[in-house]
Amino acid sequence: MEEAFRKEDFDVGVKSMEMRQTPPFEIAIVIDSKNLESKSHEFGGDVVGHLITELSNAGLIVEKVDGANFLTFLKIGAPVDVIGREASRLKLRKPTNVGLDVVFDWERRDSFVRQPLGDALFSWTERYQCIISIIDSVYGPDNVPLVKKLQDGGVIKEVMALHQEQQRQWLLKHWALRFMDLTRQPLDVLSAYFGAKVAIYFAFLGMYTRWLLFPAALGIFLHFTDQGPMEPAVPPIYAMIVVIWAVVFLQFWRRQNAALQNKWGLSYESEEIQTIKSLTREQRGVLLQKTSQQQAYGANVSEQEAQILGREEWLSRIRSVKNSMIAVTCILCVQFPFELLYAHLNKYAPNDIIKYIFTGVYLLIVQYLTKIGGQVGIALTKSEHLVSKEAAANSMIYKVFGLYFFQSYIGLFYQAILHKDFNTLRSMLAQRLIVSQLMSNVVEDLIPYMTYRWTEYKAMKADAQIKKDMGEKPHDSHDTHSLSVEKEFYSPKYEASVGNEFEDGLFDDFLELAVQFGMVTMFASAYPLVAMFAFMNNLVEIRSDALKLLVTMRRPAPRRPASIGAWLTIFQNLGVVAIVTNCALLVCLYDDAGRWKIEPGLAAILLLEHLLLLAKFGFSWFVPEEPAWIKARRIKKAFIQDHVSHRLLEMLEKNTEDEILHDIQNPMLG
Amino acid sequence: MEEAFRKEDFDVGVKSMEMRQTPPFEIAIVIDSKNLESKSHEFGGDVVGHLITELSNAGLIVEKVDGANFLTFLKIGAPVDVIGREASRLKLRKPTNVGLDVVFDWERRDSFVRQPLGDALFSWTERYQCIISIIDSVYGPDNVPLVKKLQDGGVIKEVMALHQEQQRQWLLKHWALRFMDLTRQPLDVLSAYFGAKVAIYFAFLGMYTRWLLFPAALGIFLHFTDQGPMEPAVPPIYAMIVVIWAVVFLQFWRRQNAALQNKWGLSYESEEIQTIKSLTREQRGVLLQKTSQQQAYGANVSEQEAQILGREEWLSRIRSVKNSMIAVTCILCVQFPFELLYAHLNKYAPNDIIKYIFTGVYLLIVQYLTKIGGQVGIALTKSEHLVSKEAAANSMIYKVFGLYFFQSYIGLFYQAILHKDFNTLRSMLAQRLIVSQLMSNVVEDLIPYMTYRWTEYKAMKADAQIKKDMGEKPHDSHDTHSLSVEKEFYSPKYEASVGNEFEDGLFDDFLELAVQFGMVTMFASAYPLVAMFAFMNNLVEIRSDALKLLVTMRRPAPRRPASIGAWLTIFQNLGVVAIVTNCALLVCLYDDAGRWKIEPGLAAILLLEHLLLLAKFGFSWFVPEEPAWIKARRIKKAFIQDHVSHRLLEMLEKNTEDEILHDIQNPMLG
Repeated sequence: MEEAFRKEDFDVGVKSMEMRQTPPFEIAIVIDSKNLESKSHEFGGDVVGHLITELSNAGLIVEKVDGANFLTFLKIGAPVDVIGREASRLKLRKPTNVGLDVVFDWERRDSFVRQPLGDALFSWTERYQCIISIIDSVYGPDNVPLVKKLQDGGVIKEVMALHQEQQRQWLLKHWALRFMDLTRQPLDVLSAYFGAKVAIYFAFLGMYTRWLLFPAALGIFLHFTDQGPMEPAVPPIYAMIVVIWAVVFLQFWRRQNAALQNKWGLSYESEEIQTIKSLTREQRGVLLQKTSQQQAYGANVSEQEAQILGREEWLSRIRSVKNSMIAVTCILCVQFPFELLYAHLNKYAPNDIIKYIFTGVYLLIVQYLTKIGGQVGIALTKSEHLVSKEAAANSMIYKVFGLYFFQSYIGLFYQAILHKDFNTLRSMLAQRLIVSQLMSNVVEDLIPYMTYRWTEYKAMKADAQIKKDMGEKPHDSHDTHSLSVEKEFYSPKYEASVGNEFEDGLFDDFLELAVQFGMVTMFASAYPLVAMFAFMNNLVEIRSDALKLLVTMRRPAPRRPASIGAWLTIFQNLGVVAIVTNCALLVCLYDDAGRWKIEPGLAAILLLEHLLLLAKFGFSWFVPEEPAWIKARRIKKAFIQDHVSHRLLEMLEKNTEDEILHDIQNPMLG
Repeated sequence: MEEAFRKEDFDVGVKSMEMRQTPPFEIAIVIDSKNLESKSHEFGGDVVGHLITELSNAGLIVEKVDGANFLTFLKIGAPVDVIGREASRLKLRKPTNVGLDVVFDWERRDSFVRQPLGDALFSWTERYQCIISIIDSVYGPDNVPLVKKLQDGGVIKEVMALHQEQQRQWLLKHWALRFMDLTRQPLDVLSAYFGAKVAIYFAFLGMYTRWLLFPAALGIFLHFTDQGPMEPAVPPIYAMIVVIWAVVFLQFWRRQNAALQNKWGLSYESEEIQTIKSLTREQRGVLLQKTSQQQAYGANVSEQEAQILGREEWLSRIRSVKNSMIAVTCILCVQFPFELLYAHLNKYAPNDIIKYIFTGVYLLIVQYLTKIGGQVGIALTKSEHLVSKEAAANSMIYKVFGLYFFQSYIGLFYQAILHKDFNTLRSMLAQRLIVSQLMSNVVEDLIPYMTYRWTEYKAMKADAQIKKDMGEKPHDSHDTHSLSVEKEFYSPKYEASVGNEFEDGLFDDFLELAVQFGMVTMFASAYPLVAMFAFMNNLVEIRSDALKLLVTMRRPAPRRPASIGAWLTIFQNLGVVAIVTNCALLVCLYDDAGRWKIEPGLAAILLLEHLLLLAKFGFSWFVPEEPAWIKARRIKKAFIQDHVSHRLLEMLEKNTEDEILHDIQNPMLG
């Protein structure tokens, strides 16, 4: 599908980037000179000069640009050999031409697979990681990491990724502003420019939108035609189709995701290696000390070792259950009554003015509730002491989504189940989807853009004022380069609304999609047009998200994990919940007058059944399948494997071909 | 728990087995001399002599023993160096002392972890594999594999594993005849003597029986005490407890299974390596030819390659769905009405005599139906052309279990749901569990033992008759050795009742457990005593299965896969089904007179809901998460990794310790 985007077009911007005389500037350090002056006693003499010298000594190309408002920008580029040597030092794993993933070795760089776009040795994600690592390991005269110290002192305001103008223009033309192809996107190019995580988001958004076309078209057909005597059968049939559609779509997405991970070479860092990298040095020491002793494999893993990974295996589980319970209790005891109260008041408001007042107050409070909820979620997640960063991010996602789940759907269920008021439900669904569309575009695009313009304007004005005060003429001699760096600095960051600790801006984008997916699946039986609204919304969403990333926002730091992680679980569970809610809606729909009878005993048994099914599928999560000490052992093994892997290259480069062919013919193997 | 069994006791039988002057005889080839004589023109001169010479040339120790009835036994033992060299040739993977799994290399044998019992280098499973491989690669004068040719010609009647008397006695004393410890078993010793698969079965049986104690005790308490006003709440509460108990038990079993796999070092052959071993030489050639070319990793996997693993990915899925549909249709259209008919006739039989006649006819027909069903299952499984042997075995297990599922439970549901006759249901449950216990012990133990005695007696008599005819005196000068081999030859094989193609005797043992587990969980609300019957049954089952394996049967060929595989899935699904059946039973129980009302619309919606939930969980199976070409790529990689792994040993033996320690301290890693 992506053949339509000839990668040669994009390559122009990347081609031989590594072979250029001067590498492109990809990172910028923003220094607040005013703050530096006021703290000059603390940092001594020419700290910036020292920093530039040290960075240059480390092999980086540094260009100093003075901006307005006493800001200094250090633009940083890195030649490929500098990155290569840092990659060797960091022991990055990369795929080789012979097929194995091996710890990178600069001396043997020709054995490693080059990037499909631009034929470069390193991807943007790898380059970013290496450059940041070099910057972080520059030491000051007092033998303290310099950049960290300056950041803590407020002198360095930011270390940020820079857009590459040529590539950005290509993406604008072929992606963000290409309104003909509705859902096709140059995913490979996105992965090369933004890193895999962002590319995976757009891959999901595109595929989801394409798949939405089917329930949308069917919904329109069913809504606007008359099925005559078949009319009463339409809601259950449509609901059934949507639920199955959701299951099929998500399963095919998993395949697609696996294919993309493979294509972008991202699956080569095994879970074990990721885990070991997330441990502290002490933990690693305890875990691995035994490997250096003989008979380690046969011996049992010590308690201490198992603890490191299990983190007192059960205690951490219990802590996590406790936190989930707190989250659920908060939602049920604080949010649930509040949302219900609003829905109730809104319904029985005597006139429209009071309704609007209610809604205004509600929106005001909800904003704070959400913020507090996000904070509580982050605090709870932190208290879980999760070893891996990704596990922490997932834990937070679940908690915050719980909050949004209730906020988004309670009012709808209130109308449907308590009041059997399907017309209000339908108009609310339409409103939500249309309003959410408008809102999201305003909040995501207009506000950041305005903010950015305003900040820039204010900064420029302040600069002019200062310069005027100082008797200088307001100069407008910034060359285009410096101006573009400055512009990017004043652009908003790609941040999560609940805080940037575990997630970046993708969090909000996924949240929006998940809430929408819930509406599409859970209310299918009540209103077949929901899918159509969602489809239209997503068509706009793709463009507006693209513009946001390319024009409005700073270039986000590339992130490696290339699956949609916790969100997939959420989407899948929404699919199961949709089965139950659709059935409940159907009961309400057909039993309009509440004349259907069910014996209380039967109702109790049905409730019991559903609770047990819920418990069954929830429990598997609580007891991990693999005890901690087995995981510890696996990790030990992976570490040693990884440790020796770079030495394999030497062997692999020798003529392995004949030997492997010989092995294939070896009748012993089969 | 197994500390109670001091492994030193067992070691006596194994100790330094590899260092003995003469290795023990572990395999026997049974030759039918009469058949050989009649076919002497076909095989030429002294074939047996040639075979013995060739086996000796291959390094094996061969002892020829003449038995009664013109049978000749070649007892075969293998010195450790012969096995070691064969293991190198077979590229067996083994764990090393430094922690990695590496292709075995006889020259570097000291790097490999020794067995925990007996301190031997190779486990029984490995020894068996190597000896069989040596035997199979003996060539005749005409350059054709000799043993295969003789087997096809009916001259070699059997190649079988031999019991080791000393170890067998130990196991009899400490395991089969140890009636004090009810469920504790020397699992490590079992794994060493029978291979992991059998040991895992007993581990499961033991753990299941221990866990059964809880629902059994609770059931007895609830059944024999009077709860007064709480009485009506007992069935739902007990059902709820049992369902949750089942979920918890199975999850903990998975942990236990992971621990055992790890302990017995069985997880080291990755899925990829297993797959590649299961391919034919041609398939392997196509799959791996590209790996020897540069740029293979970056290039796409060719269609041809993907096909080998995907086997036309979707076609094979569709074939498998088609077969499952055939199986389900057969069961629903043939078995279901038949079973219902029996249940109905049995209920309305005018008197007991006719009832007994019905039951007799039923049992007769059922026996044939089951046999036919098993054959159909095997035929369907074969038509699926599954690449791996384990996948084929699993596919057959699902199909045959479907058959047994209906056979075992239809009558029970008929009583409960159609007739609301809970007393008959209870007595049927008790009968089934008690009868099944008696039956299984008779069928599993008595009949094989009698058959064995009878075959041996007949053979001896025939021998005497022939010798008498030939004018010889009936000699009874067989030394004890030859007699023990002969005895084992006349013992029944450990075979599956549905045919030995995919599974061995464990199939029937697991089938019995699964049917029992279904009764315990699915009928918990109807009869709390079921768990108690099952518990008692299993206490006997452990002993009787142990005796069967040690005394009655031949020593089974060791099998490697060390999880309960498809059975775990069956047990888990029974747990989910149990939720629904218990709720249905509760409805029937409370609604004794059928006075509860449910609107037809509501019933239809509830049905829809359950069907959708079923479809949702079934669908994930149909669409594999990982496309075939990704699997192909993973396998390529694993093959190369494996291919070079033995060369790692050299490096690992050098002082890796310091380097690894250095790496741990490396601040770059974290």
